[in-house]
Amino acid sequence: MRQSKLFSKTQRSDPQNEESVNAKLLIRAGYVDKVMAGVYTFLPLGKRVLANIENIIREEMVAIGGEEILMPSLQPKINWETTGRYDAYDTLFKFQSFYSKTDYVLGPTHEEIVSPLLGKFITSYKDLPVAVFQIQNKFRDEKRSKSGLLRGREFLMKDLYSFHADEKDLEKFYEKARKAYVRIFNRAGIGKLTYYTYASGGTFSKYSHEFQTLTPAGEDVIYICDKCRIAVNREVIDDLQGSCPKCGSKTLREEKAIEVGNIFPLKTRFSSPFGLKFSGANGQENEVLMGCYGIGLNRLMGTIVEVSHDERGIIWPKAISPFPAHLVELGKGKGRRLYEQLAKAGIEVLYDDRDATAGEKFADADLIGLPVRLVVSEKTKDKVEVKKRGEKNSKLVSYGSVRKLL
Amino acid sequence: MRQSKLFSKTQRSDPQNEESVNAKLLIRAGYVDKVMAGVYTFLPLGKRVLANIENIIREEMVAIGGEEILMPSLQPKINWETTGRYDAYDTLFKFQSFYSKTDYVLGPTHEEIVSPLLGKFITSYKDLPVAVFQIQNKFRDEKRSKSGLLRGREFLMKDLYSFHADEKDLEKFYEKARKAYVRIFNRAGIGKLTYYTYASGGTFSKYSHEFQTLTPAGEDVIYICDKCRIAVNREVIDDLQGSCPKCGSKTLREEKAIEVGNIFPLKTRFSSPFGLKFSGANGQENEVLMGCYGIGLNRLMGTIVEVSHDERGIIWPKAISPFPAHLVELGKGKGRRLYEQLAKAGIEVLYDDRDATAGEKFADADLIGLPVRLVVSEKTKDKVEVKKRGEKNSKLVSYGSVRKLL
Repeated sequence: MRQSKLFSKTQRSDPQNEESVNAKLLIRAGYVDKVMAGVYTFLPLGKRVLANIENIIREEMVAIGGEEILMPSLQPKINWETTGRYDAYDTLFKFQSFYSKTDYVLGPTHEEIVSPLLGKFITSYKDLPVAVFQIQNKFRDEKRSKSGLLRGREFLMKDLYSFHADEKDLEKFYEKARKAYVRIFNRAGIGKLTYYTYASGGTFSKYSHEFQTLTPAGEDVIYICDKCRIAVNREVIDDLQGSCPKCGSKTLREEKAIEVGNIFPLKTRFSSPFGLKFSGANGQENEVLMGCYGIGLNRLMGTIVEVSHDERGIIWPKAISPFPAHLVELGKGKGRRLYEQLAKAGIEVLYDDRDATAGEKFADADLIGLPVRLVVSEKTKDKVEVKKRGEKNSKLVSYGSVRKLL
Repeated sequence: MRQSKLFSKTQRSDPQNEESVNAKLLIRAGYVDKVMAGVYTFLPLGKRVLANIENIIREEMVAIGGEEILMPSLQPKINWETTGRYDAYDTLFKFQSFYSKTDYVLGPTHEEIVSPLLGKFITSYKDLPVAVFQIQNKFRDEKRSKSGLLRGREFLMKDLYSFHADEKDLEKFYEKARKAYVRIFNRAGIGKLTYYTYASGGTFSKYSHEFQTLTPAGEDVIYICDKCRIAVNREVIDDLQGSCPKCGSKTLREEKAIEVGNIFPLKTRFSSPFGLKFSGANGQENEVLMGCYGIGLNRLMGTIVEVSHDERGIIWPKAISPFPAHLVELGKGKGRRLYEQLAKAGIEVLYDDRDATAGEKFADADLIGLPVRLVVSEKTKDKVEVKKRGEKNSKLVSYGSVRKLL
């Protein structure tokens, strides 16, 4: 894409009323625009990042047998009364239709929709197990929303729900989902910093599990067992008497972290109020067991920025980056030949064809943070200067060998 | 996909509380589930149809230079007061944050967000023209919502907004967008039934333009000039003195139709209240001119069903169909070889591997409505029986030649 055609532009100074690193950098670099506290527009570069995250998540969900659906944001009050969460859930947006006086909830999660939905189709043990997921907009009336994309009032989420005949089958799928999450965070470039973490479980399970990514910007405190490579959320560390739930070690390392994913054995918490039952092989009726598995896409994007930036700007992992490389031309039209050559090879780069100084272009390239910077100028002659974002050294390579580096 | 793995199932009888053909068929065939009036969940088959529609629209928007963004559903009240639509827009959902007491509007359209957004980036005539679009969820507090997917309280919409320095440039892009819409409706299989229609224009333009698709289920009445292949909406037929705006002919044919798209010269209707200006080549300040261009994805899906079905079920156009073919096996495992052979060739069909009678399978294939039905049974021996949906005759072809027919 030609940068001269991109309507969004970079900003030199930090935006007002933003405290978080992720929001500051994403706004300055032209990925998002703030509409109001906790509510953002994704600009073309940001939309491309979201699409990359979405594709990774979708692939991994389909790989474990997830069937994709799309549930609505508008949810009927009655469903939330059925589960007792209409009053108990503290971030619900509630409102009424002016005409029909129908009471609505704006979905912060979808157990209240997915449970009765599956109740329409599950009758026998032959209909189990089943797993459905969606990538869909969520709304939460957050008390505070000061961490940029980490805690929004509106945000995209992947939510997967699984349905099982017995505990053993739920556990089997739970482990499958855990592994899929590990793959997702590896592909998103934050695998090494992300820990499988024991957290509080609610009414029906002792523990739930979170994926926590280490960063000083994190709102959570976790205790890491380096031997087992797992962690414990502060909220349950006392229950576990300060020890690793796997090896029992008390040598745990305290760190701040962001929750990038959550998996939860719901068991009969939602199937019970909605009467979600199945008839077993021997004819008797049993309650369906459920699990739920969430990843916030905006939060994942914000987390990647928190853990992968320097004083100059963002440093995108390759799989997440809106473009594989930033082609910077110094001298009008100098980059055109390489741009077209790469396009022919099916590689779309961001091509800085603007009238701007070398200093401005380099500063923008660092701020926008694509993994590779390609410079073509009078000085590079018949070669291309290639530099990885976050590294100091560059090298000169021939036009033909550029694409092997992307 | 193996149909035995699909959690959604077909229903024999019409759903209660649905009057429209599109909702009845889409629910019975397992494409959507009704959550409440005007609010639906898209099941796996329905999600695939949506994705196909989305891809066609996205390709055509990118082809005319649209840059994809994603704006939020939560919108601040103040923006709607700025345009005077907070009280005037009759289907606005309005509510307040419990904690911050912020007044929100749930976006039924996005002029109130996109205009100030572009205002941040447009300063000079060099920044124009620009066109941005999104495929995003809309909310409308409709008085009545009885036409299934044709008029929902929550629905996906593609909205494109264009920004121009002068009327000539707006007109040029408007024509480009019109042609893109013609391509979209052609690709969606309803091109022949769809008419470019003159409709009322609002404050700043004499006319807007709709794309109206003929069907008895339509809520609109249009007057067609067969010579010019354009139409006039009843709401402006008197202004035009009952004549074709192009050739002046008074021989117009009255038909019922559904509005599947709308394009609108907004001119300064929204740029003016938001102070959206640019400095021209000679330095003076001018107001930016805008156009907007919408297509409802749910409505397009519902319209296709309204115009393309028979008494047995849906008849999907190829480009919209969730799968290119329905492979029906009669006799356990009979279809497996063809299923795998097609999968290897990159063609994913819906494979009815269920334990069910031939009658049930054929009835479901007709109801679900994929364009081609493939039958493999004892009787077909080393051949495959191929029948197009909506046609009576079938033919026997070899395994190897099936994929050329899809």
